[in-house]
Amino acid sequence: MPKSFKRMLYGGDYNPEQWPEDIWSEDMRLFKKAEINSVTINVFSWVRIQPSENEYCFEELDKIIHMLSEANFDIVLATSTASLPAWMVKRYPDVTRTDFEGRKYKFGGRHNFCPNSLTYQKYSVKIAEKLAERYASNSHITCWHICNEYHGECYCENCEKAFRVWLKDKYKTINDLNRAWNMSFWGHTLQDWDEIVVPNALSEHFEPRYTFFSGMSLDYKRFNSEGLMNNYIGERDAVRRYVPDALITTNLMGTYKPLDYFKWAKEMDIVSWDNYPSYDTPVSEVAMNHDLMRGLKSGKPFMLMEQTPSQQNWQPYNSLKRPGKMRAQSFQAVAHGADTVQFFQLRRSQGACEKFHGAVIEHAGHEHTRVFRETEALGRDLKKLGDTLIDSTIEARVGILFDWDTWWALEYTSGPHEDLTYLPQIQRYYDALYKKHIPVDIVGMDDDFERYDLLIAPVLYMIKGKIDKKLENFVAKGGRFITTFMSGIVDETDNVILGGYPGKLRDLLGIWVEEIDALLPDHANTIVPIDGTFLRDAVYQCNMLCDIIHLEKAEAIALYGEDFYKGMPVLTKNKYKEGTAYYIGSNAEQKLIDELIVHVCKDKGISSLAEVPEFVEVSCRTKNNNKYYFIINHLNESVEVSLPFVGYKDLLTDKITLEKEMLKPFDVKILVDHS
Amino acid sequence: MPKSFKRMLYGGDYNPEQWPEDIWSEDMRLFKKAEINSVTINVFSWVRIQPSENEYCFEELDKIIHMLSEANFDIVLATSTASLPAWMVKRYPDVTRTDFEGRKYKFGGRHNFCPNSLTYQKYSVKIAEKLAERYASNSHITCWHICNEYHGECYCENCEKAFRVWLKDKYKTINDLNRAWNMSFWGHTLQDWDEIVVPNALSEHFEPRYTFFSGMSLDYKRFNSEGLMNNYIGERDAVRRYVPDALITTNLMGTYKPLDYFKWAKEMDIVSWDNYPSYDTPVSEVAMNHDLMRGLKSGKPFMLMEQTPSQQNWQPYNSLKRPGKMRAQSFQAVAHGADTVQFFQLRRSQGACEKFHGAVIEHAGHEHTRVFRETEALGRDLKKLGDTLIDSTIEARVGILFDWDTWWALEYTSGPHEDLTYLPQIQRYYDALYKKHIPVDIVGMDDDFERYDLLIAPVLYMIKGKIDKKLENFVAKGGRFITTFMSGIVDETDNVILGGYPGKLRDLLGIWVEEIDALLPDHANTIVPIDGTFLRDAVYQCNMLCDIIHLEKAEAIALYGEDFYKGMPVLTKNKYKEGTAYYIGSNAEQKLIDELIVHVCKDKGISSLAEVPEFVEVSCRTKNNNKYYFIINHLNESVEVSLPFVGYKDLLTDKITLEKEMLKPFDVKILVDHS
Amino acid sequence: MPKSFKRMLYGGDYNPEQWPEDIWSEDMRLFKKAEINSVTINVFSWVRIQPSENEYCFEELDKIIHMLSEANFDIVLATSTASLPAWMVKRYPDVTRTDFEGRKYKFGGRHNFCPNSLTYQKYSVKIAEKLAERYASNSHITCWHICNEYHGECYCENCEKAFRVWLKDKYKTINDLNRAWNMSFWGHTLQDWDEIVVPNALSEHFEPRYTFFSGMSLDYKRFNSEGLMNNYIGERDAVRRYVPDALITTNLMGTYKPLDYFKWAKEMDIVSWDNYPSYDTPVSEVAMNHDLMRGLKSGKPFMLMEQTPSQQNWQPYNSLKRPGKMRAQSFQAVAHGADTVQFFQLRRSQGACEKFHGAVIEHAGHEHTRVFRETEALGRDLKKLGDTLIDSTIEARVGILFDWDTWWALEYTSGPHEDLTYLPQIQRYYDALYKKHIPVDIVGMDDDFERYDLLIAPVLYMIKGKIDKKLENFVAKGGRFITTFMSGIVDETDNVILGGYPGKLRDLLGIWVEEIDALLPDHANTIVPIDGTFLRDAVYQCNMLCDIIHLEKAEAIALYGEDFYKGMPVLTKNKYKEGTAYYIGSNAEQKLIDELIVHVCKDKGISSLAEVPEFVEVSCRTKNNNKYYFIINHLNESVEVSLPFVGYKDLLTDKITLEKEMLKPFDVKILVDHS
Repeated sequence: MPKSFKRMLYGGDYNPEQWPEDIWSEDMRLFKKAEINSVTINVFSWVRIQPSENEYCFEELDKIIHMLSEANFDIVLATSTASLPAWMVKRYPDVTRTDFEGRKYKFGGRHNFCPNSLTYQKYSVKIAEKLAERYASNSHITCWHICNEYHGECYCENCEKAFRVWLKDKYKTINDLNRAWNMSFWGHTLQDWDEIVVPNALSEHFEPRYTFFSGMSLDYKRFNSEGLMNNYIGERDAVRRYVPDALITTNLMGTYKPLDYFKWAKEMDIVSWDNYPSYDTPVSEVAMNHDLMRGLKSGKPFMLMEQTPSQQNWQPYNSLKRPGKMRAQSFQAVAHGADTVQFFQLRRSQGACEKFHGAVIEHAGHEHTRVFRETEALGRDLKKLGDTLIDSTIEARVGILFDWDTWWALEYTSGPHEDLTYLPQIQRYYDALYKKHIPVDIVGMDDDFERYDLLIAPVLYMIKGKIDKKLENFVAKGGRFITTFMSGIVDETDNVILGGYPGKLRDLLGIWVEEIDALLPDHANTIVPIDGTFLRDAVYQCNMLCDIIHLEKAEAIALYGEDFYKGMPVLTKNKYKEGTAYYIGSNAEQKLIDELIVHVCKDKGISSLAEVPEFVEVSCRTKNNNKYYFIINHLNESVEVSLPFVGYKDLLTDKITLEKEMLKPFDVKILVDHS
Repeated sequence: MPKSFKRMLYGGDYNPEQWPEDIWSEDMRLFKKAEINSVTINVFSWVRIQPSENEYCFEELDKIIHMLSEANFDIVLATSTASLPAWMVKRYPDVTRTDFEGRKYKFGGRHNFCPNSLTYQKYSVKIAEKLAERYASNSHITCWHICNEYHGECYCENCEKAFRVWLKDKYKTINDLNRAWNMSFWGHTLQDWDEIVVPNALSEHFEPRYTFFSGMSLDYKRFNSEGLMNNYIGERDAVRRYVPDALITTNLMGTYKPLDYFKWAKEMDIVSWDNYPSYDTPVSEVAMNHDLMRGLKSGKPFMLMEQTPSQQNWQPYNSLKRPGKMRAQSFQAVAHGADTVQFFQLRRSQGACEKFHGAVIEHAGHEHTRVFRETEALGRDLKKLGDTLIDSTIEARVGILFDWDTWWALEYTSGPHEDLTYLPQIQRYYDALYKKHIPVDIVGMDDDFERYDLLIAPVLYMIKGKIDKKLENFVAKGGRFITTFMSGIVDETDNVILGGYPGKLRDLLGIWVEEIDALLPDHANTIVPIDGTFLRDAVYQCNMLCDIIHLEKAEAIALYGEDFYKGMPVLTKNKYKEGTAYYIGSNAEQKLIDELIVHVCKDKGISSLAEVPEFVEVSCRTKNNNKYYFIINHLNESVEVSLPFVGYKDLLTDKITLEKEMLKPFDVKILVDHS
Repeated sequence: MPKSFKRMLYGGDYNPEQWPEDIWSEDMRLFKKAEINSVTINVFSWVRIQPSENEYCFEELDKIIHMLSEANFDIVLATSTASLPAWMVKRYPDVTRTDFEGRKYKFGGRHNFCPNSLTYQKYSVKIAEKLAERYASNSHITCWHICNEYHGECYCENCEKAFRVWLKDKYKTINDLNRAWNMSFWGHTLQDWDEIVVPNALSEHFEPRYTFFSGMSLDYKRFNSEGLMNNYIGERDAVRRYVPDALITTNLMGTYKPLDYFKWAKEMDIVSWDNYPSYDTPVSEVAMNHDLMRGLKSGKPFMLMEQTPSQQNWQPYNSLKRPGKMRAQSFQAVAHGADTVQFFQLRRSQGACEKFHGAVIEHAGHEHTRVFRETEALGRDLKKLGDTLIDSTIEARVGILFDWDTWWALEYTSGPHEDLTYLPQIQRYYDALYKKHIPVDIVGMDDDFERYDLLIAPVLYMIKGKIDKKLENFVAKGGRFITTFMSGIVDETDNVILGGYPGKLRDLLGIWVEEIDALLPDHANTIVPIDGTFLRDAVYQCNMLCDIIHLEKAEAIALYGEDFYKGMPVLTKNKYKEGTAYYIGSNAEQKLIDELIVHVCKDKGISSLAEVPEFVEVSCRTKNNNKYYFIINHLNESVEVSLPFVGYKDLLTDKITLEKEMLKPFDVKILVDHS
């Protein structure tokens, strides 16, 4: 099996087991009508295919797979292990979780298994194996989908025991663990591995965000992410044993905090993810999530495994997607690297909690609905594209560093300011680039930094391993680097790097931060530029945190305008060998960030793809030296734009691009130079 | 014992066991002075009359009953089982509850017993029996009051086991249960009754309102309501064995969600209830509650078992009732069908959590208080009325359908809009009628629909049994029917009726709802009438949900003014045989509802009792062809009104009604044509 | 050991065990540089000095104490028992707590022991004994510090059993207990001590503030405070056995609700406390806390055991203390009676939850920081003062009564108004005096009332023992007394004093309160003075609660301006023998309180220390007939003042006070008449 697709997959989750068989043939007709070519099955069918401990029952699934194969669908086959069979819960209570409050769960929900339950491990691997063995030879199975949306945390006694083993592996001696967690603080020094308890509401936490010992809580995050990943690996390897060339994935969830997806992605053949923006999610946030998903495997295309064709059910307010919006969102995914467009779900459930979640086939049961018509039209678009974009990539000269350890640690800090969270800081820098239509990669700590001309690391709170050296090398060779307040503070055990902030970044940045002031929510300071070369206003606002900065080798670009540190540097620039490192010592207003980014990009010759308004998204995928420009109007109104692609052909309409183009509401163009 | 009263009961809860006996005779004097003629006793005395497992001790109660009988009070005798004796909790821990979070309770509070505890069942029935046996022959006992304010839910293991039995009785086979709950969704299919767990925070719920499997949660509501009702029935039957003609009740609590009072009322000889409006409860909401209580037994008079003579203690802010307000509230109850006016409580507790709750005899201990004087004045009023109003009824041509199953299911939905709740929708239609002084009944699903000319069913989300046929018959014979968005969606297991909304009401309403849009809280659409025959404004606001409606047989009365469904119908009218069915596809502003109701009433010749401002309540009780008109000024200021009852006599003052009447603050008149 | 200090202690918490030994000598150098003369050690070192059940290990502590002794530091030696060793938790799970929700804790945090655990009692006493035995002869140990910040509550089974014993001791018979708790209410009458359960979320509480049986909950508060106090006493007595003249304390926390510090203080040689104002704590609130701490031992000097030199970590927003502010706060403590200025902490932790908490030695690790420089400057100030102020006292003619029982009971009430809390009411009267620079004592119920000319008792809800008689005697002899609404209501079991509010204060106040109205949050009434002798405005606002007052012997000073009790008294004055008692029947606006206080003070010849703006604090300590006036500018800006201390010398600068003095931001003067 090649590790990419022959055509753009179009389809989604299908649960025929919820329906009588006489509906299945109608489903086939409707899927074909909508140009659907792929179906995801068996996601929650464990109890159907293994109705008791030593009984397997594949008749129904055989029938479904046969039907789909006959009709030439690309099948995404799930392993069904995301929801425990009731008999397993009853017979082996160790399979359910204990929550942060210490409450042992009975039965219910999904993604409800303890990752360290030996029972779960045994039977989840076994069912994956059975499936792989049975369907190994079916060439319609395009992708294997392990479990579903791995999720959450467990705090049971099994996890506690497994945590001790994990820690012993990591630290070897209890004294090294005591040092890593700074356990002499408050006299928590441990003398025996068995004295370790899981960090939750009954031990070191007073609520999920606040812990007395962040080193311990941080290790539990790592342990838990790894535990679930091992569940994934167990099943993956079981499939691989029977299907060596299988394309294997599990669906991720964007900026999902509990799981370190950079580690997960290394174990996955292809990244897939579920995109469920809220009614008020900005389009640039969706774009950032797509780029993060692409970044997990250093730029490889990914699968848009789930999105809703119309409304969701679990938001407080589940608006319908306006006509055209679902299409624009689908192409936004493709524009950022998706090679599939898949829905949850193809036919709406009749009962239970997702019955008000949209589907290609609504409760009305037929094709005469707006939602079906839009799905069908999109199907025709994608069919027209064929395999043109498959395996194409995105070229970015700017990278934003993203790190789960930093995210976890930053949000475990007690002080200095509880409003400081990780994602909004990342998003602010992403937005500055997004608005200017400058392609950007989200970059992990293990990635090659030297592919980029500009690296941005907002609140790089934790310096793991030799990241400081890696950054120094990057800048030394001419790179531009931007970082901010609350960077360089701690090592990977969340112990402060002593001697003065920003710790190991001090040399690179050429500054010493003596103190970090925290402003009340409605307080602000100002930023006053020293000269106006690129900061055009006389003064900018800043708030939240204010570093009190002493220049060591850096020069000041702007100074504080208020308070007892008025006149001290807030924005600095340090020439470091061939490159330059910038430091923003406070939470500056967006305009300053925008202007700084534009300036640094210009300085390095990094340019916009097009000069159009910010709500018109422009991006580019490249394949065989062809560049495919995506133009997406995210507004529900028409807008006239001048594009630098005059004469290019629109792959969707075959029209030639003019000097002025009128974009309709939610309009999409994919332009290529056909000359 | 006849099933009604000889006089209007006036009195309330009395707890002499909290006081030394030398105070009792002072109580008797004060009760007589206030014209109190009825006393409720023994509500929380279980531990006093059964101080240990095999010891009964009636001396004190004998003395109290003797004293009250001698003084010719009508005694309401409670069975005392609402609060567990401490010894029982200590000896039989199964009697206490386990809560939604899975926490087992120790001892404390009240209404604190597990309905499925065999211990509780045994001893509650036994004490009721002992009381009935002992006091069967006392003719002063006018009413038997089982337990008190049945309340809450239990999730213990006994309940879990009982739930399984209840489900097996209902569904017979596990497959039928799987179908009813749609358990194939998320692979929850059960194979054995013992795999069922109670739906709470440790299983299918993530908070009380949100469940993964609404069918299961809905059945638990039914099971729990029935379980507590069986506690009631057990005691009721015990009393009946010794007192065959007893008038038996338990005090209900208005729109109390956990208990399906329509089912309960069938088991009660008379409905009684406790009226505790908050400081900000609108008077029309109180009126609706009274009408609901009357509706539970299809219009029979009820008891106002509890209200406070002055302030409450458990509100955040416990304002004093302004002078005259308690009297107005008391007569409001009578105006809606009450044959008693009873207080909690006659003498204020000295300690514990209700010591700041008002009482006829305050902590000062004497009659020289405003509260006592108002109680006394009301006593004289009621004495003057004698038995005039006893057993009189209320004639309404309009009914509003009310259904606990719909309430539960609607508020378990995940999507489309979390702000949608049942009671405010009911209240909006009630208010439209209330403001116009048009009598209305609250009607249960088992009631006779054909008594009415107009039936209103806001958000009739669930269609149980053959309600659709019953409604069709009603309209076919000339009835007017009004319903709204989110109606006709599901069957009684909360599974969607497939084929298109509003499901089984589609034929009656002549429409197909393709999609249901959910608007954000601060968003709105508009409603534009097609012609101005009864909607007088050019445009109305609507919000929350917007149905996208296709006309099948209906005609449009008004269209959406905004968004992509602008110009599509929002308000429709369908002639169905002799009658007409209206559908309101969005949450319209109150004015539109008011105008629609006025129009439909006029159309059917349903008229107001009087043309007076809306804060002057007008209602009417009828007996032996006499009509008694209640005029209640709910404002704390004077207002002049013109009543259509010129020449009628006021039963309270014997004055004759003039062309113009000045109503004092909180004034009350009961007018009858004495010509 | 004398019971006071030879010099003003300056220093704070030091945790060398968190650091390698090579840092210790640098610490010594830096402490000396900052003029630090005292170090608190061993606060959380239990596991280090007792690494297992039968192993004690003092080498490290010996070394630390030797080093500090050699360098002539005053050592504050803690007993280390505030944080359980992990081995103890693992071996004896009874040492951990069960919380209000009934959840048993595992291991973690601090102040985490069950006060009734026999294991904890045994080992905490034993380690204190070991320490005392070992270091008894070290003359550098100036103070013994038992445990740390005693804290919180436990609800475990051991506590339940101990509670029963405590109650039996208190009430002797179960019937007396039933009466005290009014258990006949809701039929909770107990027949056996073993039927008692701890009052928490699984019994009589529905949340921490709301209880069904306040008498029981109140007793649990007393029991818990006493239980922790017995832990303190156990260790204290152990130290005393070896060090008979030890000065023994534990650090309190100001207005900390769970512990009745008036009872604790009787067991302490000197009060010490930890002052951690929030970013928005008014300076007058800090002042009140200092005065409360001084009041605990009837005016004796206290220790400021902890404050941060710069920022905190556990606030939502941890602002830096502006330059000069830490010094002003330190002298504010001294001005109110502190004989020490101590910090938490001397060197910042590298890890765990307090790593962002300020310290004298910051993470930078050297003396070249603003924080160090300010610490050093303050050290020089204090060195200059020497022992001048040691043991000096404060003379106040005004006292404000403060009582933990009243605080607990008032905030357990169900009704009449949930916004009524104790501390803000105390603070309002304190502020009236603070603004006028009139010295005030916070006075406990056992203190001598006759030391004062004016006693103020806001919301004196509970009348314990013979407090009514004590107040009558005070007024009878010419005292002025001011009290308010919600006073005199209950006895010490929280049962209402029958016969009319304000109960036993009725004779003293000469009024009867018939009813207590509760206003909604945005509602108000007005107060209209009868004559304008001291209330200068025509009308004042009041809100929350409005007593409906009947004059018995008192005269009205002001009347309600609105509502049905318009024209009835709200502010009254009763001449009682030689004195006068005032009653304020509603929550009056601050201006009225200010004017009343000024009037009453003037009337008794109580005058301001100085006429300066309210943000310039003025107070006075007296020793050997010398008066030391503290002038503290709490603003971060300069202000010119005229002080009545012309010619006095400033102890800090040796300058002579002029007619006009310009106070710098956060400036401090200590003036004494040197003529």
